[in-house]
Amino acid sequence: MSSTYHGNLSISIFGQSHAPAIGVTIDGLPAGERIDMEELGHFLARRAPGQNRLCTPRKEADVPEIVCGAVDGVTCGAPLTAMIRNTNTRSQDYDTLRDIPRPGHADYTAQIKYGGAQDVSGGGHFSGRLTAPLCIAGGICLQLLRQEGIEIFARIVSIGGITDGAPCAAAVSGKPFPVVTDEIGEQMQQAILAAKADGDSVGGVVECVVTGCPAGLGEPMFGGMENRIAQLVFAIPAVKGVEFGAGFAAAAMRGSENNDAFCMENGEIRTATNNCGGILGGITNGMPIVFRAAFKPTPSIRREQRSVSLSRMEECTLSVPGRHDPCIVPRAVPCVEAAAAIAVYDALLEARKYQKTARD
Amino acid sequence: MSSTYHGNLSISIFGQSHAPAIGVTIDGLPAGERIDMEELGHFLARRAPGQNRLCTPRKEADVPEIVCGAVDGVTCGAPLTAMIRNTNTRSQDYDTLRDIPRPGHADYTAQIKYGGAQDVSGGGHFSGRLTAPLCIAGGICLQLLRQEGIEIFARIVSIGGITDGAPCAAAVSGKPFPVVTDEIGEQMQQAILAAKADGDSVGGVVECVVTGCPAGLGEPMFGGMENRIAQLVFAIPAVKGVEFGAGFAAAAMRGSENNDAFCMENGEIRTATNNCGGILGGITNGMPIVFRAAFKPTPSIRREQRSVSLSRMEECTLSVPGRHDPCIVPRAVPCVEAAAAIAVYDALLEARKYQKTARD
Amino acid sequence: MSSTYHGNLSISIFGQSHAPAIGVTIDGLPAGERIDMEELGHFLARRAPGQNRLCTPRKEADVPEIVCGAVDGVTCGAPLTAMIRNTNTRSQDYDTLRDIPRPGHADYTAQIKYGGAQDVSGGGHFSGRLTAPLCIAGGICLQLLRQEGIEIFARIVSIGGITDGAPCAAAVSGKPFPVVTDEIGEQMQQAILAAKADGDSVGGVVECVVTGCPAGLGEPMFGGMENRIAQLVFAIPAVKGVEFGAGFAAAAMRGSENNDAFCMENGEIRTATNNCGGILGGITNGMPIVFRAAFKPTPSIRREQRSVSLSRMEECTLSVPGRHDPCIVPRAVPCVEAAAAIAVYDALLEARKYQKTARD
Amino acid sequence: MSSTYHGNLSISIFGQSHAPAIGVTIDGLPAGERIDMEELGHFLARRAPGQNRLCTPRKEADVPEIVCGAVDGVTCGAPLTAMIRNTNTRSQDYDTLRDIPRPGHADYTAQIKYGGAQDVSGGGHFSGRLTAPLCIAGGICLQLLRQEGIEIFARIVSIGGITDGAPCAAAVSGKPFPVVTDEIGEQMQQAILAAKADGDSVGGVVECVVTGCPAGLGEPMFGGMENRIAQLVFAIPAVKGVEFGAGFAAAAMRGSENNDAFCMENGEIRTATNNCGGILGGITNGMPIVFRAAFKPTPSIRREQRSVSLSRMEECTLSVPGRHDPCIVPRAVPCVEAAAAIAVYDALLEARKYQKTARD
Repeated sequence: MSSTYHGNLSISIFGQSHAPAIGVTIDGLPAGERIDMEELGHFLARRAPGQNRLCTPRKEADVPEIVCGAVDGVTCGAPLTAMIRNTNTRSQDYDTLRDIPRPGHADYTAQIKYGGAQDVSGGGHFSGRLTAPLCIAGGICLQLLRQEGIEIFARIVSIGGITDGAPCAAAVSGKPFPVVTDEIGEQMQQAILAAKADGDSVGGVVECVVTGCPAGLGEPMFGGMENRIAQLVFAIPAVKGVEFGAGFAAAAMRGSENNDAFCMENGEIRTATNNCGGILGGITNGMPIVFRAAFKPTPSIRREQRSVSLSRMEECTLSVPGRHDPCIVPRAVPCVEAAAAIAVYDALLEARKYQKTARD
Repeated sequence: MSSTYHGNLSISIFGQSHAPAIGVTIDGLPAGERIDMEELGHFLARRAPGQNRLCTPRKEADVPEIVCGAVDGVTCGAPLTAMIRNTNTRSQDYDTLRDIPRPGHADYTAQIKYGGAQDVSGGGHFSGRLTAPLCIAGGICLQLLRQEGIEIFARIVSIGGITDGAPCAAAVSGKPFPVVTDEIGEQMQQAILAAKADGDSVGGVVECVVTGCPAGLGEPMFGGMENRIAQLVFAIPAVKGVEFGAGFAAAAMRGSENNDAFCMENGEIRTATNNCGGILGGITNGMPIVFRAAFKPTPSIRREQRSVSLSRMEECTLSVPGRHDPCIVPRAVPCVEAAAAIAVYDALLEARKYQKTARD
Repeated sequence: MSSTYHGNLSISIFGQSHAPAIGVTIDGLPAGERIDMEELGHFLARRAPGQNRLCTPRKEADVPEIVCGAVDGVTCGAPLTAMIRNTNTRSQDYDTLRDIPRPGHADYTAQIKYGGAQDVSGGGHFSGRLTAPLCIAGGICLQLLRQEGIEIFARIVSIGGITDGAPCAAAVSGKPFPVVTDEIGEQMQQAILAAKADGDSVGGVVECVVTGCPAGLGEPMFGGMENRIAQLVFAIPAVKGVEFGAGFAAAAMRGSENNDAFCMENGEIRTATNNCGGILGGITNGMPIVFRAAFKPTPSIRREQRSVSLSRMEECTLSVPGRHDPCIVPRAVPCVEAAAAIAVYDALLEARKYQKTARD
Repeated sequence: MSSTYHGNLSISIFGQSHAPAIGVTIDGLPAGERIDMEELGHFLARRAPGQNRLCTPRKEADVPEIVCGAVDGVTCGAPLTAMIRNTNTRSQDYDTLRDIPRPGHADYTAQIKYGGAQDVSGGGHFSGRLTAPLCIAGGICLQLLRQEGIEIFARIVSIGGITDGAPCAAAVSGKPFPVVTDEIGEQMQQAILAAKADGDSVGGVVECVVTGCPAGLGEPMFGGMENRIAQLVFAIPAVKGVEFGAGFAAAAMRGSENNDAFCMENGEIRTATNNCGGILGGITNGMPIVFRAAFKPTPSIRREQRSVSLSRMEECTLSVPGRHDPCIVPRAVPCVEAAAAIAVYDALLEARKYQKTARD
């Protein structure tokens, strides 16, 4: 059941990298909402491969077909299913991986868990390609959130150790390489190309900001905004860490330094700083939600690595041919936005249950 | 529903800091398992306040009463409820907080979410005291996991920026101040006392290791071990970040450096390093699970802070009297173990569904 | 996890018949709602044993203690736990049942499922006594629903084959023996006493009506009002059938007869008949919800029955001494109301997620 | 979220009657299981329309495409999605229904719940056609259960008041008109044709039997086999009642009559009768599970009926043209088997969590 998110929305993601199709069913969307397919297409294009020399040359059209749940582009209340047909598949690349698992990849654990029946081809259900349906679900939530005045934008904070310390800016999302400081972005791109040239890869950090969130979303304990966002962000392959506000840096601070003083601003309660990342006790405080996700470097690299042969139970070496991103961070930016959008929209539905209705 | 964890186990945590009692119901435990109450008591004692000068002088007996679910100390298959009566409460300390929320605390967001009806006294349901029932549930899971050869132990990695870089060691859990390197632990304790003397507080980082885990626990997407553990660890108040294996540091590495080479060791497949923290594709690979949680400094401090009066909607200052931990990290160590134990035991039950039974 | 209802509310029921206590945790109640404890007490008294000669002479005070979740009788947003201490227990009555299971009772299946560790005493977690926490949860939901103009009342339709064909009337709930036609009620009581005199028992049917429900509650497929109500009503021990509106009788009708014609009544859309029991496509249509639950006769009877000895694996006879209701139907009436109240309130919260808020 | 079943399996049903496709995603199937597509096709053919003069002449190929989750016909551990393209749609038939809701149908309640955006065409998501994906999921569970020695077969017990009192027999499922007593079946068919000739419809009752179930499946309270089966059977449109074993008839019995005496049979514990329908305390006792579902007559009939115009808010009459089954009961038989199969397989997975594994 692990590919079904079951909150106030139920989101069921299906497909393998080289199956006939991948897709998603979203159950629990409000009826009567127009989905802007063009905007959704632009959003998906941001994670699509083959955009430039920084990522895999595989081309995926990634145009989703709305199978059901909408009539003439407007949600009808029934579950919405969107599907992307897989066309550009090269299964032969993956034949040896059944015996010799790639270090850092799910080949080995999938083999242990599902046995010989697992679909190793293209990474199967573990493929980064499965973030496309996540982005469909998230992209629709983003559109619904915008109507509520809530915006979400992520950006690259660091790649291969090169860090852009500038504060997040909304304008970033639209850039081909979404950093605040373009000169640093240029260095990051050089680092990616250098890794590529070495048959290697690099990781990085994505920061995400949610603005316009009303205070009062999220709940204590297991339903806190941190819990909700983390549960969704870790669904993106390669994420190995999540932190909110000052995050790990807060652990080195004193309380007097980390606590965000409340203040009045134009008659509204705000905080002077935002070390808490907009979340106190699991609940939004009206300040922007801010979090960062750490992405490990792409495990599939051309450079020779040590592995084992599962059939012979002996050590060997492996070089992964195929077409792989030397860095998935640029394409992961919209995935992080999508995960955040689902978490926030779900928390919004939860909060609505307790709001007085227009009728009352 | 946010205080109910609903996986293969259902764990419902209840209580407020100054309510008659706090407690937990665990639904889904196997029948016929003896619960070692003495061991559970020792485990709970590690998070209890009043142990020494490093934490709040509040005394809480924290002896849980098994209300139901066990007969003569053996689980009977029915939901197990354990309860701790609240005795040592001083509600008068909290009267002004209803109007002037503590910076960094849930006072403000709880007020926004629940209105005047919220139980501000002692932090209500947001109190760190609610980690006691989490530890009861986790402590029981720890005992069940030990029968499977799975052990969990956490330790302090850093406090107030002072870091113990030594690798984790199992022996640490039992120490009064659970660090690997005692001399560094001494410095950490000095930092805590210095903060206390200043009417201030410090944060820190806890590392947790799960050994003996079979390969194959956890699932892709939303049911990955990272998702499961993060969802539970963020239920501990003050956690602002979680990372697995190399975590955020992996984001600065190259793939060739971060990938854990597979190797043979005594006829078994292992990895030469463990940058993935024992988890690939959300699934355990048989190496120890390793993760770290960042705790912010205790928000309740005696030092004067800026806040606002909710009734007058104007800025003011606040000094929190009461009895507060200058650093909650030492007491948080067993809480992290508890959260991990619930996550791992739940994943174990999930995996069991697909194992061939003795009958087969 | 079977004793945790996990919808928009999470309701966790705990306890065994002879454990120190039984109780319930309700997670997801709105904050700021005053719970009328006196009214709740009256509601619980309707299911309490020892009321008269028709039921077991066991006395149970059944006064719930609110452990947490409310401050001065007003919900505070945290999970609400209510508990009833068990005082009047006679465990010695049940010793032989460990070896010789009562026909029609859960003794045997509990033994198979949980082994020797199961709590056979007083029926353990399978006891009808566990409907008390269900009634606490339902009784609170009833109070919340009344604020929305929704009322729920059930009544006895038949006992031991004696049927009260009169249409349901709201006034019935308050009666000591809740039937519409008192003369038929008198016959029912005679049937119960006759069975009791024979060391036997009788079953019956309870009908429940929900008035004031807005159209639009419930969803298609698994979330229909029938699904929701059935899932909760079957949680009451001894229920072996549930039907809505015309129910099984509809199966013998023609469409032209069973279809409820829409009509206008005071400017509002109503139906001329209510064979659908107020539910079309799983969704309320604004007419009263009507359903019936069939209760089998109490399995515990004094009359000698055939059973087997589990230790000797041979047939034997059994006479159940103890104090048992010759008919649980009268006491089951509020339980059915409680189950319906939880289902309806949960569906109301679900519908609220999609209503425009006062802010909009 | 109402179209997502979330148990040990997660089953997400999608599609509207006249959308491009309908389908289902099943998350949580074991890996390595071969799905017999031919057998699945035969199973689906039993519910397909256009089989004979007893049902709608609409032809639906209903050949499911496995989109993902299986490689070469063997499950791979990833979510399995199967889809059926909709081809034979006649949307013009439904235009007036947007204004004048059919009595007994979900037109009105869907309009209230989802507003003008709802997909009225062909019944949208409320169409009986959506039982096809339910049958795909159930048909796969049936195949998995058969490996465990568990068989499920349903049959028609009554139609339009004509009842086949003979005990259920396994051989029935394969018959074109699945009754035990063919002469009574002939009368039933005459009743259907008579209703059809009158532009009317008839309802009926389906009985389902599950054999080979081990004792110990199901749990007390909300997870009982009755709760599980009822929740799934009510997902089939037109079901208005469910009863187990003696069901409503048990309500008229005495305990001494209804209780099923335990006895020894070939060294195994059995019961002499099966009034409990194989379920005691929510848990299977090793006897066949027996339940019946009452189906109301098809609401869509040619005969003139009274309804209202939603636009004019005045009464009017309606005759439903289109192609409708005069009785859906024959086609509902496999749907009931499918619902039962999902419930039983889910309970089997639940029970497995607590069984000792081969390793232990």
